[in-house]
Amino acid sequence: MITKNIFSNICPLDHRYYLANRAVFDELAKYLSEEAVIRYSALAEAALVKTHVYLNMEHPEQYYAAVDEAIAKVQPDEVYAEEEKTQHNIRALVNVIKRYIPKELSPYVHLGATSVDIMDTSASMRIRDAVRNVILPLLTEVEDLLIKIAAEQAATPQVGRTHGQHAVPITLGFAFAEYVSRLGKSIIEIEKRSQNLRGKLAGAVGAYNSTSLMVKDPEAMEKKYLEFLGLEPSEHSTQLVEPEYQLRLLLEINTAFGIIANLADDMRNLQRSEISEIREMFTSTQVGSSTMPQKRNPWNSEHVKSQWKAFAPRIMTFFMDQISDHQRDLTNSASQRFITDYLAGFSAAVNRLKKVLSSLHVDKERLMKNLSFTGDLVLAEAAYILLSCGGEADAHEIIRKITLESEKTGERMCAILKKNEKIWNTIKTQMERTIGIEPEEFFSHPELYRGLAAQKASKLAAKYKTEMETVRKSLGLK
Amino acid sequence: MITKNIFSNICPLDHRYYLANRAVFDELAKYLSEEAVIRYSALAEAALVKTHVYLNMEHPEQYYAAVDEAIAKVQPDEVYAEEEKTQHNIRALVNVIKRYIPKELSPYVHLGATSVDIMDTSASMRIRDAVRNVILPLLTEVEDLLIKIAAEQAATPQVGRTHGQHAVPITLGFAFAEYVSRLGKSIIEIEKRSQNLRGKLAGAVGAYNSTSLMVKDPEAMEKKYLEFLGLEPSEHSTQLVEPEYQLRLLLEINTAFGIIANLADDMRNLQRSEISEIREMFTSTQVGSSTMPQKRNPWNSEHVKSQWKAFAPRIMTFFMDQISDHQRDLTNSASQRFITDYLAGFSAAVNRLKKVLSSLHVDKERLMKNLSFTGDLVLAEAAYILLSCGGEADAHEIIRKITLESEKTGERMCAILKKNEKIWNTIKTQMERTIGIEPEEFFSHPELYRGLAAQKASKLAAKYKTEMETVRKSLGLK
Amino acid sequence: MITKNIFSNICPLDHRYYLANRAVFDELAKYLSEEAVIRYSALAEAALVKTHVYLNMEHPEQYYAAVDEAIAKVQPDEVYAEEEKTQHNIRALVNVIKRYIPKELSPYVHLGATSVDIMDTSASMRIRDAVRNVILPLLTEVEDLLIKIAAEQAATPQVGRTHGQHAVPITLGFAFAEYVSRLGKSIIEIEKRSQNLRGKLAGAVGAYNSTSLMVKDPEAMEKKYLEFLGLEPSEHSTQLVEPEYQLRLLLEINTAFGIIANLADDMRNLQRSEISEIREMFTSTQVGSSTMPQKRNPWNSEHVKSQWKAFAPRIMTFFMDQISDHQRDLTNSASQRFITDYLAGFSAAVNRLKKVLSSLHVDKERLMKNLSFTGDLVLAEAAYILLSCGGEADAHEIIRKITLESEKTGERMCAILKKNEKIWNTIKTQMERTIGIEPEEFFSHPELYRGLAAQKASKLAAKYKTEMETVRKSLGLK
Amino acid sequence: MITKNIFSNICPLDHRYYLANRAVFDELAKYLSEEAVIRYSALAEAALVKTHVYLNMEHPEQYYAAVDEAIAKVQPDEVYAEEEKTQHNIRALVNVIKRYIPKELSPYVHLGATSVDIMDTSASMRIRDAVRNVILPLLTEVEDLLIKIAAEQAATPQVGRTHGQHAVPITLGFAFAEYVSRLGKSIIEIEKRSQNLRGKLAGAVGAYNSTSLMVKDPEAMEKKYLEFLGLEPSEHSTQLVEPEYQLRLLLEINTAFGIIANLADDMRNLQRSEISEIREMFTSTQVGSSTMPQKRNPWNSEHVKSQWKAFAPRIMTFFMDQISDHQRDLTNSASQRFITDYLAGFSAAVNRLKKVLSSLHVDKERLMKNLSFTGDLVLAEAAYILLSCGGEADAHEIIRKITLESEKTGERMCAILKKNEKIWNTIKTQMERTIGIEPEEFFSHPELYRGLAAQKASKLAAKYKTEMETVRKSLGLK
Repeated sequence: MITKNIFSNICPLDHRYYLANRAVFDELAKYLSEEAVIRYSALAEAALVKTHVYLNMEHPEQYYAAVDEAIAKVQPDEVYAEEEKTQHNIRALVNVIKRYIPKELSPYVHLGATSVDIMDTSASMRIRDAVRNVILPLLTEVEDLLIKIAAEQAATPQVGRTHGQHAVPITLGFAFAEYVSRLGKSIIEIEKRSQNLRGKLAGAVGAYNSTSLMVKDPEAMEKKYLEFLGLEPSEHSTQLVEPEYQLRLLLEINTAFGIIANLADDMRNLQRSEISEIREMFTSTQVGSSTMPQKRNPWNSEHVKSQWKAFAPRIMTFFMDQISDHQRDLTNSASQRFITDYLAGFSAAVNRLKKVLSSLHVDKERLMKNLSFTGDLVLAEAAYILLSCGGEADAHEIIRKITLESEKTGERMCAILKKNEKIWNTIKTQMERTIGIEPEEFFSHPELYRGLAAQKASKLAAKYKTEMETVRKSLGLK
Repeated sequence: MITKNIFSNICPLDHRYYLANRAVFDELAKYLSEEAVIRYSALAEAALVKTHVYLNMEHPEQYYAAVDEAIAKVQPDEVYAEEEKTQHNIRALVNVIKRYIPKELSPYVHLGATSVDIMDTSASMRIRDAVRNVILPLLTEVEDLLIKIAAEQAATPQVGRTHGQHAVPITLGFAFAEYVSRLGKSIIEIEKRSQNLRGKLAGAVGAYNSTSLMVKDPEAMEKKYLEFLGLEPSEHSTQLVEPEYQLRLLLEINTAFGIIANLADDMRNLQRSEISEIREMFTSTQVGSSTMPQKRNPWNSEHVKSQWKAFAPRIMTFFMDQISDHQRDLTNSASQRFITDYLAGFSAAVNRLKKVLSSLHVDKERLMKNLSFTGDLVLAEAAYILLSCGGEADAHEIIRKITLESEKTGERMCAILKKNEKIWNTIKTQMERTIGIEPEEFFSHPELYRGLAAQKASKLAAKYKTEMETVRKSLGLK
Repeated sequence: MITKNIFSNICPLDHRYYLANRAVFDELAKYLSEEAVIRYSALAEAALVKTHVYLNMEHPEQYYAAVDEAIAKVQPDEVYAEEEKTQHNIRALVNVIKRYIPKELSPYVHLGATSVDIMDTSASMRIRDAVRNVILPLLTEVEDLLIKIAAEQAATPQVGRTHGQHAVPITLGFAFAEYVSRLGKSIIEIEKRSQNLRGKLAGAVGAYNSTSLMVKDPEAMEKKYLEFLGLEPSEHSTQLVEPEYQLRLLLEINTAFGIIANLADDMRNLQRSEISEIREMFTSTQVGSSTMPQKRNPWNSEHVKSQWKAFAPRIMTFFMDQISDHQRDLTNSASQRFITDYLAGFSAAVNRLKKVLSSLHVDKERLMKNLSFTGDLVLAEAAYILLSCGGEADAHEIIRKITLESEKTGERMCAILKKNEKIWNTIKTQMERTIGIEPEEFFSHPELYRGLAAQKASKLAAKYKTEMETVRKSLGLK
Repeated sequence: MITKNIFSNICPLDHRYYLANRAVFDELAKYLSEEAVIRYSALAEAALVKTHVYLNMEHPEQYYAAVDEAIAKVQPDEVYAEEEKTQHNIRALVNVIKRYIPKELSPYVHLGATSVDIMDTSASMRIRDAVRNVILPLLTEVEDLLIKIAAEQAATPQVGRTHGQHAVPITLGFAFAEYVSRLGKSIIEIEKRSQNLRGKLAGAVGAYNSTSLMVKDPEAMEKKYLEFLGLEPSEHSTQLVEPEYQLRLLLEINTAFGIIANLADDMRNLQRSEISEIREMFTSTQVGSSTMPQKRNPWNSEHVKSQWKAFAPRIMTFFMDQISDHQRDLTNSASQRFITDYLAGFSAAVNRLKKVLSSLHVDKERLMKNLSFTGDLVLAEAAYILLSCGGEADAHEIIRKITLESEKTGERMCAILKKNEKIWNTIKTQMERTIGIEPEEFFSHPELYRGLAAQKASKLAAKYKTEMETVRKSLGLK
């Protein structure tokens, strides 16, 4: 067994981010480490032996335990030592398995399979299990936190911002509901895609050449083999499983990655000194800057965005790996090994986001203050709409000029509107007809102009609460 | 109207590939040109006016024709001229529409909408229509051609190749069936995704602020607006429709792009001088090289791959465009305009592939010759399997050494096997038991060792023939 | 001649961005349009004819004019018409040239060349000329504007921001000097790389096979040919010029693209409602939002960033195009045609940035106000440093706690410091020793704590003024 | 100290590729592991202390050893334990250093620096040292092997291939000389770029705020600090060193990566069963396929290409990391940590290529056989050129038709030419005049038509032998 100080590792996922996400990464390692690669390959080999036993022996079930026991003895180090001789990883595994399997079953080991029948199959299992046992549970926890914030802050006033400019009012819960909705749909899609990874036992070029020398119905044999492993066969195989089953899952994960990167960016910006509407938790002993003692940096949100920058472009590798010459070349072998990095990097980002969301501080005072930052100009749209509905053809231009005046003089828009009796009356009449608020009241409480923000926040929070229960049920979580 | 010689255009899609795909591109331009942008935006504005009419006037239907007529008068040049003044494209469009719309309806123009309510909605329509009216029909034609080849060549022997090395036999139809299966599934997915693009009428920050000043149920108003356009609303909106509806369609198109790039690579390589199993059509006046008169280059297949290289990386832009500050920034505006290039580039590649497949020459003689290129070594696997099934524990190693001997001496593997009576008998017995062919016969006819290649080719061809009929029905094609 | 309404074009570069950058794009079209492709190819063919004349005829110079005249007659439409027959673009060009060239020179047309000898050579010329005649002049204009701002605002106080948090003071000129320095170096590098594009006359596989049948020294012949065109030969050629000469230029252009994208992001954020330190010019008739009349969006800066998102990922295509099978495949043919898009997209972004910078409004009042936004906490670092230099080992922690107190109570840091006599005296003594300002004065004028910001801004402005003069001289500009 | 079984690591670089490249990776870990991050940061902190000593104390040199000793005691585990408290990596390091440094120097630790003054500076050192001590030596070894093959095989005939089609003859050495030339230039560029990484001591926002409270000339202080570390200062700094110094080095490394990927592709294809001109070494115990005993896969070349697919797209991350808000945000922090992965991945690919090249088998017999694969059609160009030079205007078309006839009938082109007396005589005359070979002789020895292939191979081999000596001298290698 080769052990190493983790600080001598190259990849940040194996030292810095391992330490920062220890519980999550220890779980992931069960599916994504090299040990897992070998263990899952051994499971696939076991399934193949059982398939032969099933097809050829009476009372096959009585042999299964012996197969499982033999497989359990296979250690990565032994396999690697053997690979130094064979220069071929699966042949090495086969040689090691034969040392432990009962003699009578030995001829069945790997019989009829090409290496990829084992490797692609076990890769599908590993990715499925990592996604379903670690990543999806983590994602649903993040979604729960988003739902909680959206529900709790459904009515908390906030200024809506477009182009970085104050636009019209919304609520903080509504802003978070965006991510409830987007991430929620992505989680559901990931869950669906994770159930559609495939395996194969179709041989060297996918045409079942070798198994057709053994059994009448090689496709039935493949089905049996995969049944032991909880998979279905690729519709067509070359030496490889069709690459798109896996690709589509990874694309959806990258889609989720983009969503959380967007959220991270929003949270970074809402923590700007001049905005300060929310704040990541800062412990009392924590240092923001080694030289500027006053700093409280939004470093966790920054981290999520940074991980996105590190990992999102790797999607190009996954697209490139769709291409393989004829019945396959090997140019997707090394590159596909880094899918594990991608999944771990994504998990680290999600885990960090969970940390941020679970202790997010909301500054309601500041939110209200910012809402009135531009006086009552966030109601310019309302004024234009009311005037327009009241029959004024040139409403947009009229209000645009008033906003310029307001900016220049510092006088509130409402005051200027009031001076023009005709305009004021039109607005007043229109307000009575629709929302039934007095203009004075309305223009001094911009938070009233929030449309369906609060309702929508609550509605989406409720909907995705149910959706996440469904997802968790499908994952076998309570 | 600004007209230009197309050769003064910058983008190859607007000159070279326009000429090479004139019919397809003229169709696409109906949805993807700047003219189309304006025309579809006008359609969305018309729908908005009709919605107001519907909500506010009696016998609303009697006004609809007038709205449509007015909209039909809007010309891109006029809108652009107006934009020079407003510096805002949708405000320009609105001003122009107001020139043509009946006076009494004029106040309804754009009322309650933010520009993006028009632009995102019409973009969804344009992309939907381009995909459903041009791209999907083209893709199904390509799929039909693949199905035809897979079916016709289902039993045509070919050597299977892995790592560029001769592996074991398959059939040419089986090799094409790979693409029938992969592209077929992608087409079905694209069709599905194209039906799930969304629109919005949720205002400047997505909270229905302005429409809540007009109607009791702004979401119902949004639904009505989108109903006129055949769309459903985004589940949540900021100023923008949730980006993932569109993203997922584009990702699936890029998935299809990878599949045809893989096919193109395979076809390029099968046309190598040393392989020559298939051949793109070459007209008698065509010149392969300006200096090497004997050349017949697989330039159409090369072209498909090259287009993939030009367009596939643009997917990173689509992922980047998921991120928009708060209720939106504008940094996705210019970048999203190039989605039209992407769709046109993909269409050009598909169209070229169609050309290749519709006149592909298959050289059956060469296919047979190549199959025996390494003597009978493509049957080494068969020998190992038969020996192994016959109880020989060391079968792989025995045969591996025999292949080395065969390579060295040039003697056929079969001859060497025969010299070893025990081995030969084991193989013979085993063959009798399973496929019932004499070893001599088998080893001199490698094409017999093709597993399920032929059946699988036929089966997939038949299945996707039906699937494509379903797709075409959904597209409204006969 | 095929003319089209530009609004029927697909690519935004050929309609929307053409109109927005008409002068620049009309210039670019001289080098990047399809017309230019044909014209430059004809120039290369002319150079080849002249080379043969030079090598074979007496008084060669007297034939050159006739060659140039013939070439001038070649029209793109005629070439395209011919290509429909030959299906080969260069063979088509050759046929057309032969119609116009004097009979006696006709045999020299294209003699000894492979198509790529013409195409790669003329592509190098076109890119060189587009970069040197359009892009570099545009970039130097932008650099000039940056230099001007850096110099003029060298001493204008601004708060420095890290992690979006107020850090310590700088000056606005210093902030712009960052881009003076980064973009300046990139311009110099682009200029250098633009001079190192290469051509070839090395034949079908780069080994001078055909020309070695004509002349004793084929490399000298290649040199002569390229001399006519102002280029040097690729050190090694296959059918292609070594791809890295061009790649390195494109990589540096993408580097410059990243720099201006960063600047654009900074400017977007400095225009946030809450910050408002600078402002893009807004004309009085311009509409910020179709629905929110008060909006003044930083849409030009947003545009620059958006173009970066559209074009930067295309760099992957350029890297992919390094790979070509053996002496070449054609899979870089279509993809390389889109280099023209890339250059035009970059030019559009630079041109837009020029517009922003040439009318940028600086709000000095707001800059000062923001600097004191957090009271005197932007001087926390100064307090810590002074205390530390005064011998206090725990200075960072002491000040950190004081900043927390200041944030909680709202009392200025300075006041809290003053209450602690020992600390205050240490700071006072230290200030006297170094910058010779009274602490009271210092803590009420944070702009005094600006380090070398002003000097550095001035110094870099001056340096790059000179550097740009050198660049312009090399470009032949006055 | 946390130790782990390497098979429980996530990243293939920390298990599989570590084992496959143990010597190289152990070297790399000195610069790229987390241990190295901490060690180099400590070196930078040491340099800062020394700078203070130098500026403030008499006989500064006498303190330097004590500083070095203290730094040597700093262990990663201790720093990480401390970071758990501070949540800030550099503050943690500082605290640990203070435990070991002589009391009187303790106040100097980190004084005046912001974290990034340490981190960006030490990152530049680490990358510089990894590149100069490991990567460049490895690259020059690969270049040496390429030079050796180019020189030895300078005259070995090979058929030149374009579009996968036989074109005209070259030599194998000439084909390898392509990579001698391309990779050679890239190595020289990497060496140059590796000397231009920069450091900084410019403080929190790059304006030397804090150091201007300590010394009169903060830029001189920065220079002194960096002098201890062998670096020069960034021309302008924000909190960060200008990103482009490092970016340009990484871009050039990715350029080199593309070159070796191209070579790998060529070698993969030259090992196709049908071509077999070269062969990777296969040990006698090695298994090519777990099921097809005859297989000898080009898996090392495939591996190099696959690593390129895994790593080349990461260049997009490096471009994204050019962008940082204002004086910096932290979104480049996590992403930049993965530069170490990139460098290790590249090293693994180069190391694998070295293995392939150092034992490459060349099959001269097969090379000759392939050259005549299409009869004498690889001389079609020669025939056309000779005929053309002999005054035949329609030479290309005449020969093109003859090649079609030859392909149809199987008769050699030479025989058909000979039948046409006029053509034959023209060719004969022309040959006598130029290369002085009899046509019969020429057309039966295609290897004679190789242009300058052999000379060019030798010339480039010789040139880059010298260049590599220069590089090695600069690296301090003998």
